[in-house]
Amino acid sequence: MEGSGDNSSPGFTPLVVLELASDTKEEAIQWLLNRIEDSQQNGGAELLVKQLGPGVSAEEKENPNIFLVGSSRQRLLSGAEDVGLFKEFSDGSMRAFTCANKHNFRDFKGDGDSFFSMAECQYIVKHELDTLRAKDETHVPGHSQVKLYPGKSIIRRLQSKGILIQMFPLHEKEELKRLCFSWYKKVKFTFQPLDDIRHYFGEGQAFYFGFLEYFTFALLPMALIGLPYYLFDWEDYDKYVVFAVFNLVWCTVILELWKRCSASLAYRWGTLSRKRAFEEPRPGFHGILGFNPVTGREEPLYPTAKRHLRIYLVSLPFVLLCLYMSLYVMMIYFRMEGWALSIHSEEPTFWTEILLYIPSVIYAVVIEIMNLLYRYAAEFLTEWENHRLESSYQNHLVLKVLVFNFFNCFASLFYIAFIMHDMALLRQSLATLLLTSQILNQFMEAFLPYWLQRRRNKKMIHKLKRRRTLEDKELPLEEQVRLEASMSTYLGTFDDYLEQFLLFGYVSLFSCVYPLAAVLVVLNNITEVYSDAFKMCRVFKRPFSDPAANIGVWQLAFEAMSVIAVVTNFALIGMSPQVRAYFPESETHLILWTVAIEHGLLAFKFILCFLIPDVPKYIQIKLARLEFESLEALKKKKMLEASELRKVEQ
Amino acid sequence: MEGSGDNSSPGFTPLVVLELASDTKEEAIQWLLNRIEDSQQNGGAELLVKQLGPGVSAEEKENPNIFLVGSSRQRLLSGAEDVGLFKEFSDGSMRAFTCANKHNFRDFKGDGDSFFSMAECQYIVKHELDTLRAKDETHVPGHSQVKLYPGKSIIRRLQSKGILIQMFPLHEKEELKRLCFSWYKKVKFTFQPLDDIRHYFGEGQAFYFGFLEYFTFALLPMALIGLPYYLFDWEDYDKYVVFAVFNLVWCTVILELWKRCSASLAYRWGTLSRKRAFEEPRPGFHGILGFNPVTGREEPLYPTAKRHLRIYLVSLPFVLLCLYMSLYVMMIYFRMEGWALSIHSEEPTFWTEILLYIPSVIYAVVIEIMNLLYRYAAEFLTEWENHRLESSYQNHLVLKVLVFNFFNCFASLFYIAFIMHDMALLRQSLATLLLTSQILNQFMEAFLPYWLQRRRNKKMIHKLKRRRTLEDKELPLEEQVRLEASMSTYLGTFDDYLEQFLLFGYVSLFSCVYPLAAVLVVLNNITEVYSDAFKMCRVFKRPFSDPAANIGVWQLAFEAMSVIAVVTNFALIGMSPQVRAYFPESETHLILWTVAIEHGLLAFKFILCFLIPDVPKYIQIKLARLEFESLEALKKKKMLEASELRKVEQ
Repeated sequence: MEGSGDNSSPGFTPLVVLELASDTKEEAIQWLLNRIEDSQQNGGAELLVKQLGPGVSAEEKENPNIFLVGSSRQRLLSGAEDVGLFKEFSDGSMRAFTCANKHNFRDFKGDGDSFFSMAECQYIVKHELDTLRAKDETHVPGHSQVKLYPGKSIIRRLQSKGILIQMFPLHEKEELKRLCFSWYKKVKFTFQPLDDIRHYFGEGQAFYFGFLEYFTFALLPMALIGLPYYLFDWEDYDKYVVFAVFNLVWCTVILELWKRCSASLAYRWGTLSRKRAFEEPRPGFHGILGFNPVTGREEPLYPTAKRHLRIYLVSLPFVLLCLYMSLYVMMIYFRMEGWALSIHSEEPTFWTEILLYIPSVIYAVVIEIMNLLYRYAAEFLTEWENHRLESSYQNHLVLKVLVFNFFNCFASLFYIAFIMHDMALLRQSLATLLLTSQILNQFMEAFLPYWLQRRRNKKMIHKLKRRRTLEDKELPLEEQVRLEASMSTYLGTFDDYLEQFLLFGYVSLFSCVYPLAAVLVVLNNITEVYSDAFKMCRVFKRPFSDPAANIGVWQLAFEAMSVIAVVTNFALIGMSPQVRAYFPESETHLILWTVAIEHGLLAFKFILCFLIPDVPKYIQIKLARLEFESLEALKKKKMLEASELRKVEQ
Repeated sequence: MEGSGDNSSPGFTPLVVLELASDTKEEAIQWLLNRIEDSQQNGGAELLVKQLGPGVSAEEKENPNIFLVGSSRQRLLSGAEDVGLFKEFSDGSMRAFTCANKHNFRDFKGDGDSFFSMAECQYIVKHELDTLRAKDETHVPGHSQVKLYPGKSIIRRLQSKGILIQMFPLHEKEELKRLCFSWYKKVKFTFQPLDDIRHYFGEGQAFYFGFLEYFTFALLPMALIGLPYYLFDWEDYDKYVVFAVFNLVWCTVILELWKRCSASLAYRWGTLSRKRAFEEPRPGFHGILGFNPVTGREEPLYPTAKRHLRIYLVSLPFVLLCLYMSLYVMMIYFRMEGWALSIHSEEPTFWTEILLYIPSVIYAVVIEIMNLLYRYAAEFLTEWENHRLESSYQNHLVLKVLVFNFFNCFASLFYIAFIMHDMALLRQSLATLLLTSQILNQFMEAFLPYWLQRRRNKKMIHKLKRRRTLEDKELPLEEQVRLEASMSTYLGTFDDYLEQFLLFGYVSLFSCVYPLAAVLVVLNNITEVYSDAFKMCRVFKRPFSDPAANIGVWQLAFEAMSVIAVVTNFALIGMSPQVRAYFPESETHLILWTVAIEHGLLAFKFILCFLIPDVPKYIQIKLARLEFESLEALKKKKMLEASELRKVEQ
């Protein structure tokens, strides 16, 4: 934890930045600062706040209402207990931190300086700010339209009413430099520094990068098998049975192994057995004031029936309409394809050869655009469904987006494979779709942000040069904070996981007809690591860390895809000339056998999922030991109390 | 809690009976009694023990080593805390009982007399006896071959070495009379008194009877639809499509609803959120002494690899061999069937008509016998696999028995339906199998025990008459205990669930071709309730209550069966002439469509399982509230401690 700028008082380390709207009333600001600094007994957050001084370019129109929030060491310790942070105990196990026990935790030295990472401190401060609740105020002083009621989270209300523009944690320059260097600055063949990523960005981010790495490594055998298939033309459309069977086993096994891998990471990072705190309502949630049946606190309530009406009568038809439109666009694509083919067959030249690929490229671009547009619509609709919890909002959003993207990306491939039975077109279409979407993605994700970042940096240097000449000198804290405030906000791992999900689909569903797919995905993912790492470190504001214990709903999504992959691969196997040769007399027998074996394999897959324990044995033992020890300690305590009671009675 | 016999001292209520072998050394008995009566601080169980006096028929050769175990009220309270018993709190919620809070529990009056049911007291005493551990003894005094090591459960070692012949809880005459009366003595159309059953026998039993009742009611609509189908000959083998679709939906829905129903029951009985204690090794488990990685205690260890070798190299081949034999017997049955058919078609008379049913009846009897023999083999094998935990032993046993019974009972039906395509034979075979197995079961379960019971009662009355003349007088405690000790031991709900599982299979898999099946199962289950209730109350020793939170592994078994039912029903639908009429030109199209719709339905089924919450909303809210309150209380406590600390520092 470094960060003493030139004007920060000793002992105050700025952790989190609050930016209020520039037209906020002075009394509202004063009231908020008081509440933040007030002691916990009076219902305050007991944190430290400082206003940010004017920057070097004070002559310009700048927002003066930027505040830095810090915390005393003591407060951080008690806050860590509030949020249920897990730290490494002296015996090497991960345990929930308690102040009473603090000296038994490894790395706790002196009065606990540098015991928590800065990301942890920021997470604690965020939690304390989020749970700062209104007492008997009916509205924010000076803003009578911003209503409050006892128990309402002040920060969330300010956020939803636009008074609090943003709240974000500060970067650590030195740490970040070190992380960048070990992560992506040098080209090397080592694993990513996952522990350092977790240390700086938190568990949620680290899980994404861990999954990305795992998935890329898991694709390697497929790429290695696929490459000779492609180079030496082994497939001829009928040798792909072996590859399909391999696909089938592969996609089941890697997901099961990832679960175990993920449990190991979560245990190491102390999030595996950590309890989630009670979720507050989302900032945008609205309803009529009532009493929450769980907490007994006053809180807006929104009838579930009404939400279900919105979901089933508006959202569901809308999604179906979008699916229909996607189908319509697909049909246009097939007409274009047919038109291009007819031109080529009439008078085949080099140009008509190229023309053959044009419809697929256009279709791929249209698919990306439709996905993007749909994404906005889905966000709007899910927001409008008015979910109480962020997790429920996320689940509904993910479901909507997944179904559409799956349909949009793969419908044409399914159509080509199972209705048109045209394996040559399937291969060409798959290749074009995959390549185009990869190129588009890389451009949107890497080059665009890089270019924006360069432009912004130049502007900042230009601005500084007006006052200072020493270019290599570090930015003063004021400038640093304002620079970070102007950076884009990182919107979570949603899009990154979605991209991997679609890539997984391309590979597991159809790659047996285009074995190069795995190779392309591996190449894509290697650049993806670098571009995502760069984005995280240089382009976006630092995100608050998110104590995830796994990749959440995405595990389910990938597993669903792997079940679909089993069915698809079996259908492809059943259609292959090789297999058909075994049943020369009757197609019915062929299909019945294929279906029977497929059912058996699906059953086997589910049994396998059930048999392989999700948590590795050694972690199960460690967790059981912890539980046992705490039970034993409780028993001993009770026995002591009972014997003391007996002494008193005698 | 009544039970003061003529010679039991005031304040001592006998709860549990320990019967030691008659050749047990006197010093071993003395040592055991001392350990049981010793205070907890000295590592004893702090319970009360009394030797049972000689019975009225002392002249006969009777075992003198029968001991009655009781407990002081105070000990029961602290024991309830040890086992984590849930009781109703004053606000109506179910909470873990704690002595410190005892006055806040509903029905806790005075010093807690009659606060616990006798079944609960017996469960507590059993737990305390089971966890009575050896200190530094290396063997049981007087029996040097019965080795002990620090931490070994004394009772389990005595059990496995045959010194402790049995340990069982006593019946309560008055309670039992009342329960019998409300349960099965009067024929009425009300629900079973599940709460009373739970009160007397514990949650495990109550869950079985609850499931039996639920399942029977769930079958009613099917029986109501099936009856006219049968009576008015609606089916003609081709009208069964409607019935198959109904089957399909029905078996998914009832299992989902049962889960919710089961959660409600478990919440009401306080077992839903109760934590399972650490499982001790089974009595029969053996291995080389080592240290348990979880508890750190000395304990026999048996390498998992060795157990896996035994499972995969011996048990698995054995099961496969049994399956093969079952297949072989099936083939003999089909040969007999063909032979009977040929005789009948040569010269059809009334007797040859009857002869047609003979092979099925013989086959049904053979199936039952094979099931029984296999059962013993499976128990022996699973015992030999040397599982450390009772739960793991049970899971392996259930798996073995289920697979074989499923195969044994249904293989011939599958063969007839999908290989022979003979719907008339399928119907005849199903009817014969179902009826024969029901008749056999009812005989084994109801008449046989009833007859044995009558014989035993007569013997006892005869014995008593030799000394007393008053026949209606209550049995003295000594006689009562000896009578109960001679009753058969109830072996758990395994066989009862297994029977229901097979009936569920008959109904859900094939009942569309024989709609009377549901009616037969309903009738069977109504008598089943009475015969099982009679068995529990009159034939068997009282079992220790088992704090179950659901029907355990059987839920999974029923769900697996319902998935198989979807596939089977769809195959039957695809084979029906009605559906075939839609695809007159191509069989391939018919099959592809059937398979596609079946896949869609299976997917829908899994999504439905996922969407319907397993625990009803109102219970979720109650559980969340409890958790929230305990968190808030903890927070308040910490805040108080912190402010006190601050005062001290000042």
